[in-house]
Amino acid sequence: MTHKIAILGASGYTGAELVRLIATHPTMEIAALAANSKAGLPMAKVFPHLRHLDLPELVKIDQIDFADIDLCFCALPHATSQEVIRDLPKHLKIVDLSADFRLRDPQEYARWYGGEHAALGVQAEAVYGLTEFYRDDIRTARVVAGTGCNAATGQYALRPLIAAGVIDLDEIIIDLKTGVSGAGRALKENLLHAELSEGAHAYAAGGTHRHLAEFDQEFSLIAGREVRVQFTPHLIPANRGILATVYVKGDPDRVFDTLTRAYQDEPFMVTLPMGELPSTRHIRGSNFCHVGVSADRIEGRAIVVAALDNLTKGSSGQALQNANIMLGEAETTGLTHAPVFP
Amino acid sequence: MTHKIAILGASGYTGAELVRLIATHPTMEIAALAANSKAGLPMAKVFPHLRHLDLPELVKIDQIDFADIDLCFCALPHATSQEVIRDLPKHLKIVDLSADFRLRDPQEYARWYGGEHAALGVQAEAVYGLTEFYRDDIRTARVVAGTGCNAATGQYALRPLIAAGVIDLDEIIIDLKTGVSGAGRALKENLLHAELSEGAHAYAAGGTHRHLAEFDQEFSLIAGREVRVQFTPHLIPANRGILATVYVKGDPDRVFDTLTRAYQDEPFMVTLPMGELPSTRHIRGSNFCHVGVSADRIEGRAIVVAALDNLTKGSSGQALQNANIMLGEAETTGLTHAPVFP
Amino acid sequence: MTHKIAILGASGYTGAELVRLIATHPTMEIAALAANSKAGLPMAKVFPHLRHLDLPELVKIDQIDFADIDLCFCALPHATSQEVIRDLPKHLKIVDLSADFRLRDPQEYARWYGGEHAALGVQAEAVYGLTEFYRDDIRTARVVAGTGCNAATGQYALRPLIAAGVIDLDEIIIDLKTGVSGAGRALKENLLHAELSEGAHAYAAGGTHRHLAEFDQEFSLIAGREVRVQFTPHLIPANRGILATVYVKGDPDRVFDTLTRAYQDEPFMVTLPMGELPSTRHIRGSNFCHVGVSADRIEGRAIVVAALDNLTKGSSGQALQNANIMLGEAETTGLTHAPVFP
Amino acid sequence: MTHKIAILGASGYTGAELVRLIATHPTMEIAALAANSKAGLPMAKVFPHLRHLDLPELVKIDQIDFADIDLCFCALPHATSQEVIRDLPKHLKIVDLSADFRLRDPQEYARWYGGEHAALGVQAEAVYGLTEFYRDDIRTARVVAGTGCNAATGQYALRPLIAAGVIDLDEIIIDLKTGVSGAGRALKENLLHAELSEGAHAYAAGGTHRHLAEFDQEFSLIAGREVRVQFTPHLIPANRGILATVYVKGDPDRVFDTLTRAYQDEPFMVTLPMGELPSTRHIRGSNFCHVGVSADRIEGRAIVVAALDNLTKGSSGQALQNANIMLGEAETTGLTHAPVFP
Repeated sequence: MTHKIAILGASGYTGAELVRLIATHPTMEIAALAANSKAGLPMAKVFPHLRHLDLPELVKIDQIDFADIDLCFCALPHATSQEVIRDLPKHLKIVDLSADFRLRDPQEYARWYGGEHAALGVQAEAVYGLTEFYRDDIRTARVVAGTGCNAATGQYALRPLIAAGVIDLDEIIIDLKTGVSGAGRALKENLLHAELSEGAHAYAAGGTHRHLAEFDQEFSLIAGREVRVQFTPHLIPANRGILATVYVKGDPDRVFDTLTRAYQDEPFMVTLPMGELPSTRHIRGSNFCHVGVSADRIEGRAIVVAALDNLTKGSSGQALQNANIMLGEAETTGLTHAPVFP
Repeated sequence: MTHKIAILGASGYTGAELVRLIATHPTMEIAALAANSKAGLPMAKVFPHLRHLDLPELVKIDQIDFADIDLCFCALPHATSQEVIRDLPKHLKIVDLSADFRLRDPQEYARWYGGEHAALGVQAEAVYGLTEFYRDDIRTARVVAGTGCNAATGQYALRPLIAAGVIDLDEIIIDLKTGVSGAGRALKENLLHAELSEGAHAYAAGGTHRHLAEFDQEFSLIAGREVRVQFTPHLIPANRGILATVYVKGDPDRVFDTLTRAYQDEPFMVTLPMGELPSTRHIRGSNFCHVGVSADRIEGRAIVVAALDNLTKGSSGQALQNANIMLGEAETTGLTHAPVFP
Repeated sequence: MTHKIAILGASGYTGAELVRLIATHPTMEIAALAANSKAGLPMAKVFPHLRHLDLPELVKIDQIDFADIDLCFCALPHATSQEVIRDLPKHLKIVDLSADFRLRDPQEYARWYGGEHAALGVQAEAVYGLTEFYRDDIRTARVVAGTGCNAATGQYALRPLIAAGVIDLDEIIIDLKTGVSGAGRALKENLLHAELSEGAHAYAAGGTHRHLAEFDQEFSLIAGREVRVQFTPHLIPANRGILATVYVKGDPDRVFDTLTRAYQDEPFMVTLPMGELPSTRHIRGSNFCHVGVSADRIEGRAIVVAALDNLTKGSSGQALQNANIMLGEAETTGLTHAPVFP
Repeated sequence: MTHKIAILGASGYTGAELVRLIATHPTMEIAALAANSKAGLPMAKVFPHLRHLDLPELVKIDQIDFADIDLCFCALPHATSQEVIRDLPKHLKIVDLSADFRLRDPQEYARWYGGEHAALGVQAEAVYGLTEFYRDDIRTARVVAGTGCNAATGQYALRPLIAAGVIDLDEIIIDLKTGVSGAGRALKENLLHAELSEGAHAYAAGGTHRHLAEFDQEFSLIAGREVRVQFTPHLIPANRGILATVYVKGDPDRVFDTLTRAYQDEPFMVTLPMGELPSTRHIRGSNFCHVGVSADRIEGRAIVVAALDNLTKGSSGQALQNANIMLGEAETTGLTHAPVFP
């Protein structure tokens, strides 16, 4: 059986990544592509790398007949997404890639995103989309909220450790390096090649990055107490890839064992041998996440590093993995291609 | 039926690219991986991006029992390849990725590669592996010689034009820009990041690049007379991708029509609308080749630009496409994934 | 004696490059910096790499008292520049970096730039700023028009050859590779890191790039007849640097000798030994231009390659070199620092 | 008065950077360039970006007549340097850029560098070359030991804080991002463009990087007790630049005030306004070091970020700054050129 798929927000990078992945998915068919600002254009004009595909033309969202659609990916900007999803027909399964449904507490949402939520009902039913930890809920969900790409990377390094109680919850530092595609296709000066290449800088330091809201929510939930981490993202001159270097206090061997056990049956999670650390170069373009552990020379301290592709495992690949589950497909369908290196 | 595959030279980029592609090929199974200098290592050590795969350990070539193998990819260095292939069992189908069997004339080989050929018998039976133009011969070949990656790119822009007689054969200039992975994983100063990034230069200018031998052989064969092109490759700071800007004299519309017709039924060849030119960014990691034509302001002159990924359509993807044909599979099997952008 | 300098358009890359160069110029003092859209900001906010300097705050152009200014660099957008310069006091020496005063023929200007010129009087007196070829006129000029960066690169490869009559004037092809900073700090999708890195493409092909107007004007003037070249610029993933690969018909040794002689006494022009070709990596951040010649294997054909930094020798360094001449300083003052490599 | 300068190890990046800087130094003259493996070659062959300079040919070290030399920069590999310097004439002032004379304790040297030191006498007299903190000793030193480039960056962020006692000495984490030129021009697989570009990874994690020896020595000395920091370097795809993100526990305002006061009179140290953090893009090619402070959302924690160019302020610029002092020149001579951006 073929599932009819709609993608809203197809002119952004996560929209294009969904098309790239679904292009070779054996049981999904792209039935509609929406991008309000580029409606009327063929996808080949907006993303020439997809020009070999036979794709529907871009339309406005309200031109789509959702009666025919089984599942809808929403790759729309934050805030826009909640207004669109609120009004979508209820038969639709929805995987949202925006930040709009990640936070369960409306007050936390308002605090981090600066305004009231326009679809509190949907927010209440949305399942947090970190597949490995919410698989059962995702299976029966109508709406799944894709995680932040940085938030996913940090959680892959930390969730099993917090759950197992093997690290000090008050001394967690996430120093994260991210490529630029996570910022989207927006026209911002700091995303220009001339501004970004050949350098590195920290941004949103000191606890201001919105993905902290997800860390706070999830880590506190797991720990059963409030957990507040330090988180400093850095922009590096790469298009894809997030590397989270996480400093924890705990026995390095227990840290390693805990992560190894947590991920041993996961199809996309790869734990490296003790002492080896991952590189974003080795997961590029794929849905795999590599996690490594190193002991520090100071006793009782460890470094955990997680690497994933922000556009794949960090957003569109995760979204497709969740969609597979929601549609009753094998979770890995269409997602097993190997990373592209070099 | 599953075909048992061996890859010789698995520690180089084209070897790794073969593994990447075959990893999701439905009817091929990697039965042996050889890399003499790294024998004994797991592939995960040599190419960590492949660590999620269940692959055989690297061995020396003479450790392989070829009785079990259906087809062997040889991704060995030039000159080494001919010595290895000469001694392989005759039941094996072979796709060679080196330069050793590209030239039919032993004297031309000696002139360009500086020595006598060690396997003239194999050279005589080898079929030139530019799939779209040698498909029938490949189907029945025992040994297929993969083309040079630059040579492939230039030929995709030019072969139909030469065959159709629509351009001046004495006035062809190929100005080519190539990423660095085509030079392999060799430790050379000019391949260092610090030497290569943030710049551009021409190399092997003036008619000294060995891929000219392929242009000479093929273009002269098609034209029925000697054809000598100008060819200047440039190294640019990118890992993958070749862009060939080809200057021809001929009517631009006839040039466009000839290419469009030539490639209209080809699964991996995409002709862009008249006046649009391709980018290497839009074929990265895929087996597609984009070709575009622009008229020049000077009457009777046209610019043809072809773009492909040197590791995929330019070598390992081409090799797999040919292997599919040799094994009776659909030609596109395992090769239809979309380019990775950004 | 210290010359008081104003820079109009200081929030763009060429404006910042002027500040960078003048920062260590022994006899120039930056007295005013204008940038209408960023007026009121300190330069450190707009260009943090200049934050160690004690610079005047950015102001609007009409806030500058030009009575105190000796020389004014105009690094404004095309079309804006002519309106501003038209109204500047006549005592001012002006070096313009826009395209507005490069073309002498008002009809050619209108044809290439799509409108009538707003300052025809200034256009009539402006001297074309390719220093090595207009040095005497520059010495006494009130207004010098900086050249296009691509136009400069191509001319360095070709002017002496056209003047000496050693090449076929009807068979000149300029295949040019340029970094991205030449396009300025404008917010355009194709200038984003994610769009531009790791690839290459041709743009403005077929004779539509405006720098062709300069080639036409200058080459025809030198030759005493109409000369029309082919010119295809390509964008490559580098911030600085232009490489012009020029295909000519003529005796390679005469080509080499002509260029060597033409540039032997020039402080910033470096002719490489016969057969060696330059790299943009080796002129980065400097005012030097490297030129090399290679014979082609086809008799009577040569490849000339010129490399310069578009922001330095291609615009702001050239502008400072001209300003030195106009102010009676040694031409090389403040411009002799070596390229930055790697 | 002109100082005669010799550079030993002129075929590496720090050697070339010394030549670049000295090229426009008003009172230094390069009298000898040594590079044993490239002796006999002109510098233009080894570093074409220096081809406009009139430089002595590369020679072997023993071909240099040191009687004429005032000061010698040693940019030789570790271990080699000590053997060469041991045998240099005693009248020579020496600035060493290797690791050989950074550690005062021979046992620490042996522990970190794996062998006994061959020039313990010189080691005993060598002054640690972090200019801002050893200026007086450098003035009268015969031998100055250049610091590690990572070690310099971390120290600029931390020394004033440790000295002032405003941070917890047992809770310091240095997460460092470095470009690739710090690894030199060595032919190593991980330095290839194809291996390095478009990604990030940690290396020498957990307390194994040799620059830790410098942190241990210096921080313990300042604190008057043993201080052990955590230090994780990461390789990012840039040629120049180090960014050290330092996590400390202490009052953010006191941290900021302490750094501001410490560096207010330093010509090359720039403290950014509170809350602003530096980028390596904005110090590229220059001798400036930018330092910024951000408060964390968790009370009593701060993030300090320092950025410098590893080849300039991190090694060759530092060396020249020290040489200026040793020769009685103004410390900033030849070093004030602005960063190159973009």
